Amino acid sequence: MQYSTAIEYICMIYRDIRDIMTINDKFPLLSKIDSPADLRKLPEEKLPQVCSELRTFIIESLSNNPGHFASSLGTVELTVALHYTMDTPDDKLVWDVGHQAYGHKILTGRRDRFDTNRKFKGLKPFPSPDESEYDSFIAGHASNSISAALGLDVSARLKNKKSHTVAVIGDGAMSGGLAYEGLNNASSSNNNLLIILNDNNMSIDKSVGGMSQLLISMHSSRLYNKIRHKAATFFTKIGLLNRKRADSLIRFNNGLKAMLYQQQNIFEGLSVRYFGPIDGHDVIELVHTLNTIKDMGGPKLLHIHTVKGKGYEPAEKDATSWHQPGIFDIETGERIISESGVPRFQDVFGETLVELARMNPSVVGVTPAMPTGCSMNLLMREIPERFFDVGIAEGHAVTFSAGLAKGGAMPFCNIYSSFMQRGYDNLIHDAALQRANMVLCLDRAGIVGEDGPTHHGAFDLAYLRPIPDITIASPYDECELRRLMYTAQQPGMGTFVIRYPRGRGALTDWKCPLETVPVGKGRLLRQGDDVALLTIGPIGKSIAGAIDQAAAAGVSVAHYDMRFLKPIDEELLHEVGRKFKRIITLEDGVKMGGLGSAVAEFMAANQYTPEIEIMGIPDSFVEHGATSELYKLCGMDKEAVLNAILNKR
Amino acid sequence: MQYSTAIEYICMIYRDIRDIMTINDKFPLLSKIDSPADLRKLPEEKLPQVCSELRTFIIESLSNNPGHFASSLGTVELTVALHYTMDTPDDKLVWDVGHQAYGHKILTGRRDRFDTNRKFKGLKPFPSPDESEYDSFIAGHASNSISAALGLDVSARLKNKKSHTVAVIGDGAMSGGLAYEGLNNASSSNNNLLIILNDNNMSIDKSVGGMSQLLISMHSSRLYNKIRHKAATFFTKIGLLNRKRADSLIRFNNGLKAMLYQQQNIFEGLSVRYFGPIDGHDVIELVHTLNTIKDMGGPKLLHIHTVKGKGYEPAEKDATSWHQPGIFDIETGERIISESGVPRFQDVFGETLVELARMNPSVVGVTPAMPTGCSMNLLMREIPERFFDVGIAEGHAVTFSAGLAKGGAMPFCNIYSSFMQRGYDNLIHDAALQRANMVLCLDRAGIVGEDGPTHHGAFDLAYLRPIPDITIASPYDECELRRLMYTAQQPGMGTFVIRYPRGRGALTDWKCPLETVPVGKGRLLRQGDDVALLTIGPIGKSIAGAIDQAAAAGVSVAHYDMRFLKPIDEELLHEVGRKFKRIITLEDGVKMGGLGSAVAEFMAANQYTPEIEIMGIPDSFVEHGATSELYKLCGMDKEAVLNAILNKR
Repeated sequence: MQYSTAIEYICMIYRDIRDIMTINDKFPLLSKIDSPADLRKLPEEKLPQVCSELRTFIIESLSNNPGHFASSLGTVELTVALHYTMDTPDDKLVWDVGHQAYGHKILTGRRDRFDTNRKFKGLKPFPSPDESEYDSFIAGHASNSISAALGLDVSARLKNKKSHTVAVIGDGAMSGGLAYEGLNNASSSNNNLLIILNDNNMSIDKSVGGMSQLLISMHSSRLYNKIRHKAATFFTKIGLLNRKRADSLIRFNNGLKAMLYQQQNIFEGLSVRYFGPIDGHDVIELVHTLNTIKDMGGPKLLHIHTVKGKGYEPAEKDATSWHQPGIFDIETGERIISESGVPRFQDVFGETLVELARMNPSVVGVTPAMPTGCSMNLLMREIPERFFDVGIAEGHAVTFSAGLAKGGAMPFCNIYSSFMQRGYDNLIHDAALQRANMVLCLDRAGIVGEDGPTHHGAFDLAYLRPIPDITIASPYDECELRRLMYTAQQPGMGTFVIRYPRGRGALTDWKCPLETVPVGKGRLLRQGDDVALLTIGPIGKSIAGAIDQAAAAGVSVAHYDMRFLKPIDEELLHEVGRKFKRIITLEDGVKMGGLGSAVAEFMAANQYTPEIEIMGIPDSFVEHGATSELYKLCGMDKEAVLNAILNKR
Repeated sequence: MQYSTAIEYICMIYRDIRDIMTINDKFPLLSKIDSPADLRKLPEEKLPQVCSELRTFIIESLSNNPGHFASSLGTVELTVALHYTMDTPDDKLVWDVGHQAYGHKILTGRRDRFDTNRKFKGLKPFPSPDESEYDSFIAGHASNSISAALGLDVSARLKNKKSHTVAVIGDGAMSGGLAYEGLNNASSSNNNLLIILNDNNMSIDKSVGGMSQLLISMHSSRLYNKIRHKAATFFTKIGLLNRKRADSLIRFNNGLKAMLYQQQNIFEGLSVRYFGPIDGHDVIELVHTLNTIKDMGGPKLLHIHTVKGKGYEPAEKDATSWHQPGIFDIETGERIISESGVPRFQDVFGETLVELARMNPSVVGVTPAMPTGCSMNLLMREIPERFFDVGIAEGHAVTFSAGLAKGGAMPFCNIYSSFMQRGYDNLIHDAALQRANMVLCLDRAGIVGEDGPTHHGAFDLAYLRPIPDITIASPYDECELRRLMYTAQQPGMGTFVIRYPRGRGALTDWKCPLETVPVGKGRLLRQGDDVALLTIGPIGKSIAGAIDQAAAAGVSVAHYDMRFLKPIDEELLHEVGRKFKRIITLEDGVKMGGLGSAVAEFMAANQYTPEIEIMGIPDSFVEHGATSELYKLCGMDKEAVLNAILNKR
């Protein structure tokens, strides 16, 4: 070993020790919690400090390594209280969307790896049983926790286990029909499920709908809280109750509440015992309450009130922006957003929608809880009366849009591709079968990156293609997105799907004129003789460089942008079938059932016998990581395309 | 014209006149109602007679031409009252599942064609805008009416129309998450939607879940009804109210109800004004109530109580059997059921499930409201504690099953193929991604016959195939169904889908031993040299005769039963690819994306260049009719297969 290397080595060890010592100084309790068992050894009065350390740890981690921020700050006390009172992992916690579960990860043996959260090969973005025995169920799509936890609990009851099962669900997720289906079934089987309703009046954007209004009114019933407090004081004074017991007794008196609330209690209506609302940031009260109710038989719901972004002022003030803020400066609250002259597809969608709405008075916008994410907030701001945020409710979003369409409006319904799986029947039964004139924009189509397998929009082309009477398109670039949107809202176009990816396109000058695209027609982007490359969507643009490289290596590639998966351009395919002995197809979606299948079917049906290489997402769930890493992993990047072109010369 | 022909002609005219006269005699009012406008010309006091005639007409029609019976008898008075008070078709009625809507069809110009209901080329099984301007929205899958009607109404408000929109939803459909999503959104936009909750405590089987219990308690609150009645009498006596006004005022006093009901009112909780419950068989009261509330602004719900099968005693007593009774003798109530020694696939499923549950204590059954339809009622009877009817809630059924599975149980979740579209995301996100060990049995897969396009299980093979990590199988016959079920419940098999059709198989001796099937392996049923015929499912058996006929014509066909769509038998496909220049694939599902696509993809990827003919459901929604007619229509019957084999010699 050289002298300099040895010095370097010693320095490295020194830095490691210093880091560890800093961590131990800064997080004297948290640094010793390697599992919930360690937490449970602490006396109750130490819990506020654990919460404080956990909150600081989350803020510091996320300021460097971007992730879901505000949600997890809101559940710090709840997380500590749950692991303190429940015997995890034998007791099961089911988190509804993993945004809330960072504290849970940190307390369950993943503290030291938390800096790898959401990174390629690092900690998974959402809880997953594959990663930890403390993760009882997958938690990527909202509203599944009650049904899942009910299954886990019923299963435990069938085996006569004594364990507890807890579902933690946000008020935003409560607007999902699946949550209601779970709740509606909670009372009809033998179970001891505990549902924690984490009510912060937010999902990513503001919660909407009747349920959300109901929860606000339940929380803000001052009269009730006043009477409750006075009665507790009175009963304690006259010696009938000790303070603690008085609190809980009166807190749980639903009859009283029912009389005082102007609105009724939906949960008791569904035979689920209701407790609360209590302060979700008082960890001691949470612990006492959980201990009081956890062994009660039958399904029950504890309503807690929390603040999204709690403990970090900028996030408390603007929870939507701080849902997933990216890197930021802790001191100033300044978010470090990389500037780019190139807009995101989302911006192009949002701005074009406003343009179209101004031109066409029938145009309206429908979003299931993603006005900011999909940029429909631009329409919300400009023409609020023609904007509908229906909450986390993809099925309703599609059927409601079909109703709007049958009534003569022209809805643009924007849904993230992977969430569209929730509205599949609605698309078939309520839209396509009636040829409803509506536009379905599938945002986040294809590989999405760090959000991982639950969020990749991998399946849409494959599950959409078999549906009769719909149009399926994907734009090559931002201008094409605008043209497709313009085309889709013209009269009599039926149900018109446009899918595009998350993130930035390639054009700085994207405000091209709004022109009609011929439906079902692709286009030849580049002449070539040896190989036909058929692509759909912006992935076609991202690999265009491979064609130059192939040309340099002496292989001439014809590049076709299919633009439409359905109706597919049969004239174009005949040309390709006649002319080429080798075809490569590329799509940002699963290989099975999408463009590649369509081309293989067509060639077989028409007795063309080219070699066909189908490129796309392979037949497995794709992990999380940067999109560039994932495209490489899936063999869908420029190098893979070049290899496909060259290897088969 | 010959003498005898002339006589015959006169006789024919005489019979026509006699029939018309009989109809006029029997239905003096109904026979003159050619549209709702005619109904609205009648004085109110004639409405009970219209109801009586309509009920008789439905009973007589359905005794000859089978259809959905009990539901439509329950909505006779509601139907008459709605068309009497609303200005249809400008006012919009949205029926939730068309089972309820036969009276609606008869009153809206389809009386004289009602004998063609559900027949090939006859009236459609469910309301459809394609058939009548009075049908505002498609109504095949439950729970969509509120979302759809909300869209229609919001659309009318945007255009400043004064029209009314009414959604009629049964209590069974209220367990669907989509209904809740609609309800939850009803209060958050500008609309005057009227929801009629047709509460008969039944869907097809008994309604289940918290909502169902809530509705029962709301109806049966005797104290409330007593007080309401007394108060009305009192106020009328002291001259403060006329009788009619008193009724409505007190009926609508939610505050009173809220205090008296033990359970709370979920609808008011969601900011939807609640009225009722009232007697849904008192047409006069319905008319008065509808007139009172129809012009009130904002969303509102009228709760009516009806009896499924009302007015036909055998149906009132056993509404489940009389949901869709087939042909029957009106006098005796005897149902004419054709006897057959061959069981239905449903019977085989139901009996085998009980056998497996006895062998394997982990086995449980989950059904979304179809215990009778899928024959899981056998398990319900034998081992009720391991049977879960979750109501109309397909998404929950799948996620709940995944929860059960992750907790260590082995669920058999049985869902009709077309309804499975409602649980698509749940299958991907909650089952497949976690490799939950569960069996998903898709009943009613493929062409289902008279229930038509909303009910054909056409898409499942195509939408299932892209999902990673699942197994997809379809049995050739009843024995194979048993073997697949036995195989699927073995440990570590992951998410295992078995799809099979509605109706009878072919075997009388079906109780074969339970043996393990090698997963992912097909089998050669018949040797041949000229053409390879690759089929999946019982349709392979139904066309086997074509192979004999082809042999007689000199074409030798090798018949492969693929058995598994996923994992597909690659060894078998290599053999086929090497040996055959012509391949025909046949599946009881859409051509795009299923078995045919898989074979085309495989051959292309492996540089085999056979001609491939893909047979299956073409790329359009398939109408209704007898299955034999529809298989012929789609080119999937024996003759079509024979032609495919021979035409290409």
